[in-house]
This record gives sequence, C-alpha cells and structure tokens, in this order.
Amino acid sequence: MSEQKFDRAALEQLVTKRFFYAPSFQIYGGVAGLYDFGPSGCALLNNIISIWRSHFVLEEEMLEVDTSIMTTHEVLKTSGHVDKFSDFMCKDLKNGEIFRADHVVEAVLEARLQGDKEAKAAKAGKSAEEIAAEAAADAAAKVDKKKKKKKGVVVAVELADDVRQSYETTLAQIDNYGGDELAEIMKRFDIRSPETGNELSEPKEFNLMFESLIGPTGQLKGFLRPETAQGQFVNFKKLLEFNNEKMPFASAQVGRSFRNEISPRSGLLRVREFTMAEIEHYVDPENKNHPKFVDFKDVKLTLLPKDVQLSGKTSTIEMTIGDAVANNIGIKGDRLRFRQHMDNEMAHYACDCWDAEIQTSYGWIECVGCADRSAYDLTVHTKRTGEKLIVREQLAEPRTVELWQVEINKKTFGPKFKKEAKAVEEALLALSEDQYAQLAKDLETGVGFVEVNGQKFEVANDNLTVKRGSVTEYVREYTPNVIEPSFGIGRILYSLLEHSWWVREDDEARNVLSFPIVVAPFKCCLLPLSGNAVFEPFVRKFSRELRQAGVSIRTDDSKASIGRRYARNDELGIPFAITIDFDTVEDNTVTLRERDSTKQVRDTFENILKILKDA
Amino acid sequence: MSEQKFDRAALEQLVTKRFFYAPSFQIYGGVAGLYDFGPSGCALLNNIISIWRSHFVLEEEMLEVDTSIMTTHEVLKTSGHVDKFSDFMCKDLKNGEIFRADHVVEAVLEARLQGDKEAKAAKAGKSAEEIAAEAAADAAAKVDKKKKKKKGVVVAVELADDVRQSYETTLAQIDNYGGDELAEIMKRFDIRSPETGNELSEPKEFNLMFESLIGPTGQLKGFLRPETAQGQFVNFKKLLEFNNEKMPFASAQVGRSFRNEISPRSGLLRVREFTMAEIEHYVDPENKNHPKFVDFKDVKLTLLPKDVQLSGKTSTIEMTIGDAVANNIGIKGDRLRFRQHMDNEMAHYACDCWDAEIQTSYGWIECVGCADRSAYDLTVHTKRTGEKLIVREQLAEPRTVELWQVEINKKTFGPKFKKEAKAVEEALLALSEDQYAQLAKDLETGVGFVEVNGQKFEVANDNLTVKRGSVTEYVREYTPNVIEPSFGIGRILYSLLEHSWWVREDDEARNVLSFPIVVAPFKCCLLPLSGNAVFEPFVRKFSRELRQAGVSIRTDDSKASIGRRYARNDELGIPFAITIDFDTVEDNTVTLRERDSTKQVRDTFENILKILKDA
Repeated sequence: MSEQKFDRAALEQLVTKRFFYAPSFQIYGGVAGLYDFGPSGCALLNNIISIWRSHFVLEEEMLEVDTSIMTTHEVLKTSGHVDKFSDFMCKDLKNGEIFRADHVVEAVLEARLQGDKEAKAAKAGKSAEEIAAEAAADAAAKVDKKKKKKKGVVVAVELADDVRQSYETTLAQIDNYGGDELAEIMKRFDIRSPETGNELSEPKEFNLMFESLIGPTGQLKGFLRPETAQGQFVNFKKLLEFNNEKMPFASAQVGRSFRNEISPRSGLLRVREFTMAEIEHYVDPENKNHPKFVDFKDVKLTLLPKDVQLSGKTSTIEMTIGDAVANNIGIKGDRLRFRQHMDNEMAHYACDCWDAEIQTSYGWIECVGCADRSAYDLTVHTKRTGEKLIVREQLAEPRTVELWQVEINKKTFGPKFKKEAKAVEEALLALSEDQYAQLAKDLETGVGFVEVNGQKFEVANDNLTVKRGSVTEYVREYTPNVIEPSFGIGRILYSLLEHSWWVREDDEARNVLSFPIVVAPFKCCLLPLSGNAVFEPFVRKFSRELRQAGVSIRTDDSKASIGRRYARNDELGIPFAITIDFDTVEDNTVTLRERDSTKQVRDTFENILKILKDA
Repeated sequence: MSEQKFDRAALEQLVTKRFFYAPSFQIYGGVAGLYDFGPSGCALLNNIISIWRSHFVLEEEMLEVDTSIMTTHEVLKTSGHVDKFSDFMCKDLKNGEIFRADHVVEAVLEARLQGDKEAKAAKAGKSAEEIAAEAAADAAAKVDKKKKKKKGVVVAVELADDVRQSYETTLAQIDNYGGDELAEIMKRFDIRSPETGNELSEPKEFNLMFESLIGPTGQLKGFLRPETAQGQFVNFKKLLEFNNEKMPFASAQVGRSFRNEISPRSGLLRVREFTMAEIEHYVDPENKNHPKFVDFKDVKLTLLPKDVQLSGKTSTIEMTIGDAVANNIGIKGDRLRFRQHMDNEMAHYACDCWDAEIQTSYGWIECVGCADRSAYDLTVHTKRTGEKLIVREQLAEPRTVELWQVEINKKTFGPKFKKEAKAVEEALLALSEDQYAQLAKDLETGVGFVEVNGQKFEVANDNLTVKRGSVTEYVREYTPNVIEPSFGIGRILYSLLEHSWWVREDDEARNVLSFPIVVAPFKCCLLPLSGNAVFEPFVRKFSRELRQAGVSIRTDDSKASIGRRYARNDELGIPFAITIDFDTVEDNTVTLRERDSTKQVRDTFENILKILKDA
C-alpha cells in the first residue's frame, strides 16, 4: 500500500482487537511506555528471536549469555551510564507538565513551519482540504523524520525566509544538541509549552536508569540495566577462556532492558522496558575485518552519512539493499537504510555508529544500532577492577621493541618513601610511554614527579634510572575493540506489523497481516465446521500430527461462521487454515486455505500435511 | 552415584570452570543472589524453556504472553504483595549482620542437635572420624531438609530428651511460623547470632520486592514483579476474548522475576533474580477437572501431605512416579516428589499448594509450586478496578433461582439521599445474599443500614422493599478459579546438573555431564585433528550441514590434544563429537564419539550426519 493511504489508527485498532500488544495494567489505566504482548504478539517475538538466534548465534557460534538485569551502581558508574546516560527535561512552569527538551523544541518548530505553509497557501487562495492534503503528502515525503510526536499547536503565521531556514537547520540537527545548546535554542526561539503556551524551565539532566536498592541493608544501590552489553563485557575474561583464548569471537544476549524515558511515545517505539538482542564482536584493533566480509562485500546498502545530515540535508546515497534477515522476517528491503550518527548524537562509549533504520508511518526509525565501542568498555572495567580484560597473543616471531625501562634503586627508594614505597613503585612501573619520556626529561634537569591516588611524589636520580632500551617480546597484549550490533526487537516487531498489513480491495473491513510463514505467530489454523461432536476426534488427531510435524497451530472451534473465522485468521496473520467438515468424516479430506490469495484446495489430510511441512 | 559420595565442591568447580554460571559482576566482587549464565548454562536454559514451551504451551494451545516486569504499586497493592510478600529479618545487635529469622533459628537448633549427637557419641567412645561420617550419613538420610545453610557453631553439649524433641518439632514446622511465633521461639530457645553469640533484634517484616520510581516526576512508585502471574491476571479479559470466550483455558508466561531476598544462599536455589515459567489454568470453580485428567489418572506420584508433616514426620506415601517432562530433561524420577504446603506456609493468595520437589545435595528443593489460587487474584483486581474479570456462560437451559430483590421507591429515595442517592442505590443493588437477608430482617423491625465508602446510610421501609422472589437466569456469571503450576527454571537447571554429573571410574579428574540429547547445550562437537589448513574446508562444510540438519554444534579447533578436547566436551555435556583427520581429507570419513560410553565409530560424514539427525 502507498505511504499516503496508510491509516495508522486502523492498524492500531487491529493490534488491540487481536491482542498483539496493549498497554500494561490497562485495567488500572496503564502506564506510558509499558506494554504487554498477547498470544500473537508474544509468538511473533519468540519467532523473531529464534530466527535471530539461528541466523547469528548458531551460524557464527557466538557465545550466548544470560546475565542479571539488576546491576550494581559500581558497574554502571564505571561504564559511564551513571554520569552520562541521560536526557534533558524541562517543566511547564505553571502546570508542572514535564517534556523532553529536544522533543518540545521539535514540536514547536515543526508547528511553526506548518503554520508558515498554511499561511502561504491561504494567501495563494487554496482551500482548507487542499492544504491538509498537501501537508499529508509532505509529511509522507519527509523520510528524514525519525518519529512523529505530540504536535505543537499550528497557527497560520508566515515566517521570514531566514527564520524558516534556521528552524529547518535546527531540526535537521536536533539529535546533536547538548543541554547548553538546547537552553540557548529554547531562549533564542522562545520555545514554550505547546498546548498551554506557558514558559518552560531550563533543560535539566535526567538519568534514564531505574534505580533500586539491593538487599535488606538499604546500602547497596543498583539499577536495572539500560543495555545487555555490560553483562557481556564484565564476563569477557570467562568468555575468552570458554573460546579457548581464540580471537576474534562474539558474545550475544537476548533480554529485557530498561530506560526510564521522560516522555514515552509512539507506541512500541519509545518505551520504558524492552527486549533487545545484542551482539558484541571482539576484534583486534589492528584488524577489524570480519572473517566473512568477503562473502558479503557485494551486498549493496542504502547509506546516509553524517556529513550529509550535518549539511541539513537527508538525501541518501541510493543503492539497492539485500539484507537477508530483514527480508526473511518480512521487512521490506526498500524501506531499510543505514544512517550514520552525528558526533554529539552518539552514546558516550561509541566512536562511530550507524543505525539500521526501517521506514514506517513514524518516519525512519532506528531498529538496529551498530556502534564501534572501540576499547572503551573493556578498558574502563579493567582500570576499575584491576582484572585484565585483555588478549594475550603468542607472536609468531618474537619482536624487538624500543621501550622505556625503569630501574629502582632499592637502597634509597625504600627509606625515602617508607610505607608508600610499594604504591609509588607500582605507579612508576605503570606509566605510559609518554609519561616515561617526560619523567626522563625531568630527571635530566632535576627531579621528576609521580602521582599515586591524586598525591604527587617527588623522585630523584638517586632513586631510579629511566632509560630507553630494546626488549624482546614473545607475546602481544591488547584490549580488543568491540563492534556492537544492537537489535530493538519491539521496534522490529512494530515495523513488521506495518510492512505486513493491508486490507482486501473488495472489503475495507477485511484486514490481512501477511507475515512470512517463518515468523507468523501460528502456522496453521484448524477449523471444525461446527460444534458437532463428530469433528472432535479429527481435531484431536490432526492437531497432534501437525504439532509433531513442527507446525504450530491454533484451533478455532468457536461458533462463528467459517467466513468470519477466516477473516479472524487473516487478522492474526496465520498463513494457512484447514477446515474439517462432514466430507472429512467420510473420506479424510480437508480444505486448505491460503491467507494472502484466499485460494482453497481440497485433498486428504496426509497430503495437506506434507504441503504444510515443506512450506 | 550414591548420596554419600556426592562432592558438591567438585561439581561447583566444574560449573565455574566451564562457565555454566558464575556470580554476576564477579570482577567487581559479585553480589549475593545474582548469577550470570555463560554459553553452556544459557543454552541449557534455552533448551529447558523450549521443551517446556512445546510440552505445555504448544501441546495444550495455552495463550502465552510476555508482560512488563516493572509493575505499578497499585497492582501489587491490590494483589496483596505490598502488604504480605515479606520475610522476617533480625539483626545482630552488636555487629549489625542481618539474618532471615527462620534461617537463624534453623541454623542454631540444628547445631545444638548436632552437638548433642557428638556429645553422646563421645561418651560412647567413638572417634572424631566416626562421628563425622555418621553426621554425613545422617544429613544424607534427612530427606526432609529442603536446604543446607550457613551452619551454626557446633558445640558438643548433650540435650535433655524433651528439649531435643521440642527442637525437632520446631524444625519440622519451621516454614509454618509467622513473626510473633518466631519471636516467641527465639526468646524461648535463646537464639543468638550463630557466629558471634551476640543477641539478636526481634524479627521485623521485610518486603521482598525491589522498589523503583517510574517516570521523571518521582511520583509513580513501581516494583519489579515478584511473579509473572499478575501480568497474566490483569489481562484476563483480553485473554478470554482471544480464546473466543471459551472456558476452560490456560495462559502462560516465561520470564524474569525478582525477590529481594534477605540472605540469598545455596547457589541458584535462593536468588534475587530468576527465570520462571508460570501457567495459569482458568477453571470453573464448580468443575476443576482437567480435560486430559483421564489420560494421566494412573500415573503414580510420591506425596508428602501436610498432616504427616505437622505430626513432625517426613515419611512419604511411597509410590512410583513417571513424570514425562522431568525424565525428558534428565531429572531422575525417583528423586521427585510432591509435598503439600502447611497452612501458614502458603502464599497469601493460595488455598492449597503442592510443591514438586527434586532431591539434590541440598535436600529436597521446590522446583515447581502448584497452587490453587482459587478466585483470589481475579476477584481483588475486579474489585479494585471495576473491570469485571469474570466468565459469562450461556446456560443450556434457563434456570429459576430464588433471590433477594430490591425495589427502590423513587419518590422518597431521591429527596432523602439527594446527591448521594445514586451511590446509595448502587450499594443497595450490589449487596450479597447474606447482606440482603440481614437488611430484610432489620427492616421488619425498624430501619436498615447500607455502607458507601465507609459511611453508613439509614434506609427505611418507605424507601425500598426487600423481598425474596424467583428469577429466571439465562446466563451464569462466575469468577474462574486459577490453578497455577509455577516452574523455577534455575532450580530445575541446578538439579539437572546434579543428576547428570558423574566421574569416570578410571580417572577421578574426568567429569561427565550426561545431559539427555534434547537438553544438552550443544548436540555435537566438531574437532579438527590439528590446526592444519587442510581441515578448514571440512570444518566449514560439516558445520554448515550439521546446522542445516538442526544439530547445534561447537567447534573446538584449539591446540589441545584430541583426548583433552574429548574430556572438555564431556564436561560441557556434549553428547557427540566428530573428529576430522587426514583420512577425512582422503575419503570423507570421520570418527563419531559418544560421550557416556566413549565408544567410537568410523563412517562417512553423510552416514554420521544421518545418525545425529535421528538421535
């Protein structure tokens, strides 16, 4: 179906009616950003995860782990999340409503741009309908908008050309701003609460992790993990050992993560609790190539690099894309692209990041974030714990390197530093090459200094010698770099719903979800013609044989007509239906109906079973 | 292997060495009660869950859901968890150490009983070794101890017969005591901190839920769910609708739950975060039979009813047991029993509860709790939200019932109660049959009363008439009862490790984990004889074909000898190994080795593949 015709409200109605998902605790009024998956949504989730697992984990023998969600303060302090994993929020100064600062800027500026358009159109004498249709077409064409949000109130006011342009530039870079910049923009453009027009407070940082206390003492602070990655990193040493010390390798994890979003929105796209599937490729920083790269080097991708975005544009480098997994689970190849993050947009641990984005009615949404985390995480955990998360590689040939070497003069060293002697010696032995060079230079002309836990100690020429010399190395030690593809399963599921949904031409009320067979919540529906008891043994027998053949089934023996039950199957996206009728009782034949074509064939159950098994 | 010979330390060493699981954030020192599952543990978990899903969910077409972990205060207040989901803790008054009250009573009394035994043995002139051996045999025989714990300090002091007996009676009922009773017992038996001998504080209630705040306002309190069940109950209406309003049916959920244990212990057995798999059977309270009961009525179970336990004994009603699932995943049938909960031991929502217990070196441990939750949960959520979580059943024949009926006299009612009139009328129409009877009786002799939100309103004969009359009903409304089997996946996994583990007779260092093929973390190991490049294409080809045949594999191309790598496979519980050697390069034959027997056969890869596919 074309973008213009897409009716999100109708899809949402279907999602609710067939309980793919719904707000959690809905009978209690629900909570923003928390969703429950019903039977069909849960089966979709399980199937997507299972395809993911077989495509990545089993195919590449990745080391899958299952680690704690509750994570101590110390781990997440070290990883940088306690200090940096936050968004900026601001408050309506009169009614106390809380907004995410970048979202409110977006909403207000977009409303003003829309107002400008309407004012200009009105001047040109267009009707209200024409203006609305143009706006819709325009929104559809704007493939750069990653999400739709609570709209600002649109007032038809014309803007000066330079104002319009500065709004557009700001919007193109909205993900790139920090707190100070947001504050400046809010002041400059007089951003106010979209609905009330009230003044807003200055943007304030809000940490996105859910906090709790572990144990009965109330002393041990913990957080719900914001990503599954840290649980993999802290186990790096065990994983490397499990892999017989061989590099490169990857670990993987599927599980729940949590982000206490300021303003959850857009259904499954920005939620507070979500299932992610993360892969951590541990690679040699001197050789980041993937061993299978050669097999895929000719696959073409749609790329949107950061310099194009920074120029305020969104034109992609157009190429065909053939991502096998996406197509397998029902995501359309031409609605998938890879967008590079701008520098300030990146997470604190990343040195490069490309999002796999899927186009939906919310615009292009990030579904897989691919980050080069460099050696960041393994380095900070090593520093904090003293546990070396490194690789020791036997060199094929020993190599001689020039290194700074320190020799301690025990006679003068001990007496000089007394009980600090050991700590000062350790600090001296752990300096970087640059620090040794500086120390050597300092000692040439006088005394040098070394820092231990923030305290400076003076060292002199009679305490030690620092000189450059050659050392033969047999082992190379390095901290692996980490390349991380991180999959948002809920977002993929939502995109799949949009890409799979259509309505029959002859009847707008007849929804169809054309899930590929491999991902459909159930493969086959079993429909006895009526509640007549003669059908029961056939339902039991067929359902047992289908299950044994690995065909997941749903029995619909409700009293609704066969036609209504077919329509229900279409809405659940079940690819096949088998109908049991009075002929079945006579000759063991059944009717098989295919969902998309609605075509029906009649054959013995055994033959139909064979078809389904191979489908 | 026999119970006496079981060496738990050796199994724990194996579990760590092969990274089945390990304390979370171990490089940070770990946190009690939090564990990470490594690649082999994670694969076991996934396989157990997948067998569980196909045995229960798919087999009986249960409605599987996936609901939020973060749950609002209001939901868990209503379910009773905020008020009642707690244990009692007490504090060493000098050093502040915190204990679970029932655990400390157990530890101290058991230590005294042990001291009594040693004193008596010493009097009889036994050696220290003999006493230790007897104690070990004794512990093994004591199948009633559900868990081992931090021992009290044993001092050889003889006890009077009546004292010893009162200790034993107390221990047999330890799970049955509330806070007041624990306080009384601690006073009566002078229970002190086991290691320091310091006095302990009175037992104080400690809620076991992890608390957090949802959203940026800090106003909305939430908890991490202590069970997956509530997420199912609050969705009951949607689930019944999904099931086309048909009863009975079951919902199911696999997922993480959290309990902030006071003193986690015994490895995976008492943890703060765990994966559970819960089934909620919704049944007609007038007919709780399972439709498939007839198929299983002859399966014999080992039962330990509550009256036997309350008498202070632990003799089971011995019968054979043939639980298909347990056997399938490698739990030994003769080490499985069903124990009934004592009345005070039951959770607040249960009216009957039988635990499926598995015997391990920790004694009998609860792995599946089977509770009759009656209509408790659905009733409290209905009351609190006004959303009727009930079933409406069309009656086959209309039926006439005698009911109390209320007729309001509008003329006097409105003027009397004014703006409260509607609320009072609603309250009058919602009374129970007993309350109507009381009201009718009261009105006979004077006035009656009705309560609205805690306020009493007087009603008189001129406001209404209350009389008994016959009503014809076409629909029966009822709140389903819930029968819940709740599986602790981590506990089952641990029991599986114990039941699967043995050491080769000829070599004590050679551990084997004899997992059944269906549950083993990997089905087959692929071993190239050496790092010679000629083997590489064979490794690639065989691994691809094995995976395509659904055989999960682990390639071990490390430099260790084949013998050492076989030993490693045995420790990982991989049932088969395929060795690729120089003959393979010549004639495409490989060696297949079976784990338990260590038998080897030589055949072409194609024939071996066929064997593995069918295994």
